[in-house]
Amino acid sequence: MVTTTSIAPLRWDNGLWLLDQRELPGRERWIAVRDAAHAARLIRALAVRGAPAIGLAAAYALAAEAAADADLARLRRVARRLAKARPTAVNLAWAVARVMARVEAAPADARAGVALETARELHAADAAACLAIGEYGASLFAGSAVRLLTICNTGALAAAGIGTALGIVRVLHGQGRLAALFACETRPVLQGARLTVWEARRDGLPVTLLPDGAAGSLLAAGGVDGVVVGADRIAADGAVANKVGTYPLAVLAARHGVPFVSAAPTSTFDLACPDGAAIVIEQRDGDEVRRCGRARLCDPQVAVFNPAFDVTPPELLTAIVSERGVARPVTPAGVARIAR
Amino acid sequence: MVTTTSIAPLRWDNGLWLLDQRELPGRERWIAVRDAAHAARLIRALAVRGAPAIGLAAAYALAAEAAADADLARLRRVARRLAKARPTAVNLAWAVARVMARVEAAPADARAGVALETARELHAADAAACLAIGEYGASLFAGSAVRLLTICNTGALAAAGIGTALGIVRVLHGQGRLAALFACETRPVLQGARLTVWEARRDGLPVTLLPDGAAGSLLAAGGVDGVVVGADRIAADGAVANKVGTYPLAVLAARHGVPFVSAAPTSTFDLACPDGAAIVIEQRDGDEVRRCGRARLCDPQVAVFNPAFDVTPPELLTAIVSERGVARPVTPAGVARIAR
Repeated sequence: MVTTTSIAPLRWDNGLWLLDQRELPGRERWIAVRDAAHAARLIRALAVRGAPAIGLAAAYALAAEAAADADLARLRRVARRLAKARPTAVNLAWAVARVMARVEAAPADARAGVALETARELHAADAAACLAIGEYGASLFAGSAVRLLTICNTGALAAAGIGTALGIVRVLHGQGRLAALFACETRPVLQGARLTVWEARRDGLPVTLLPDGAAGSLLAAGGVDGVVVGADRIAADGAVANKVGTYPLAVLAARHGVPFVSAAPTSTFDLACPDGAAIVIEQRDGDEVRRCGRARLCDPQVAVFNPAFDVTPPELLTAIVSERGVARPVTPAGVARIAR
Repeated sequence: MVTTTSIAPLRWDNGLWLLDQRELPGRERWIAVRDAAHAARLIRALAVRGAPAIGLAAAYALAAEAAADADLARLRRVARRLAKARPTAVNLAWAVARVMARVEAAPADARAGVALETARELHAADAAACLAIGEYGASLFAGSAVRLLTICNTGALAAAGIGTALGIVRVLHGQGRLAALFACETRPVLQGARLTVWEARRDGLPVTLLPDGAAGSLLAAGGVDGVVVGADRIAADGAVANKVGTYPLAVLAARHGVPFVSAAPTSTFDLACPDGAAIVIEQRDGDEVRRCGRARLCDPQVAVFNPAFDVTPPELLTAIVSERGVARPVTPAGVARIAR
């Protein structure tokens, strides 16, 4: 059975178009991206998010720049700035480096074509990777009625194809083995409530929404058979940087003996990063927490602690899954094996 | 140094008035409570919340009923219904039982006076209990720069006087030993963001707001010296039912070797309840999670898991504090000693 979805975070149509995820689920608005600076602003503002998707957006934005003006020194400057739009997800710098490596090697008049071709190849490769991740990940869960818990959005909106952790969920659903998907709402930006619920309902997945703080109750009640999450950067020792709130889920899953799995394409692995302590964690604006959408919740002057990501150490992970296979247990050797 | 606050969730002024906490921090609106049925609706709707405060609201509502019509059979019916307005916080049934015991023993023409007198006594006793809890709790934390993490609102809005867990925070502040108060926003109803931040800013406490999912990052970074929470019911074995999200904090605190303290007056202890499994957990409407204030976050049809409370087992608690002292470690004998 082929698992597919019609949902996508971006498309190329005489230029890069992004589905504005800030407006979901209320409105499906597509933004025509003018240039790389525009793309960087949209990435920072979370119009497009999800580690693989921001990599692809940057790749296409670079292709658009190359089409506009293929001067190599200029493209290098543009690429450098684009790669820094957000610090934690390594896929962004990875995708920019892939496109630039091919652009650097091409004759001047072929740069625009090569850049677009590379972006399209990365796009297709990511979709294929998500399918493989889905298959490998689904094989980790036995039985005919699997109940999974997830956080943030790791689906078709966060990657090409079926998504990473949600790719696992989709494959289980395609196999008729998914009994329940529990989605943490994922404050402050609510990617779970806004995006995962929207995706799941569109594709017929049996989704239940919960506040982030209720995951402990659910796990304590024996309500799930596994926790599946994505990743924004995976260090050489298997430490996983992912959406803030992931680490508490891993601690809870370990306490309750529930498998905890991180799923990501090889582009998310950073073997140059030795461990979690070496991963830069993006701190975001406090207004994300002081507000919910347009509503102000509290005093605009109050101090806020708002890290976008946290780090789960390898000992709390049951397995890491990439398109190259499964690292289980999570060891440096296992991570290296599935990282490329 | 005397620790006080001018904040209160209710007052008696020719009848019961409640500060509508649904409107905070935007607006300070006081509601004149018409009768016990009105009080029960306001309790269910969270206009007044916090285990001690809903007990006091019910006690005064019963006094208002006794003033209107002191027929004993009628008052018994009213009391029974009022005690069931919310199921988890035992203080509600406790306060109603206290008032009714005195009303039952009084002559018919003294019932109204006795009911009001009892409500006022409970009110004063709760304020005194909060002060004692604050002193006992503050003594658990050494040093001159204590950083505490809390969830929900356990302050002057949740009780009489200075509050329970926030009472500890206020006493430390009064002693010049509070370096930081970290307040989890506490989805779905956001008692942390809306109420604790408002209280803390009004009373000059150095508060920092965080999303519930970021508590793991804060604890992993060594950012706090203790976690202080309230309680809605404490079982004989020391299991604590409290706001959903408390149990994950306890699991994280244990992992990071950070003291985890629950603070509550003796009215919150239920020695007839053997353990956490025997505590009824209120399940609340899914729209609390599907929405944030007036804003709709997702598909109104999506299933929601929304327990209002969770249960922290005694082995995760460093101490329980009541106005009678400190149970540390948390054992059945220790709990019994501070429960009355």
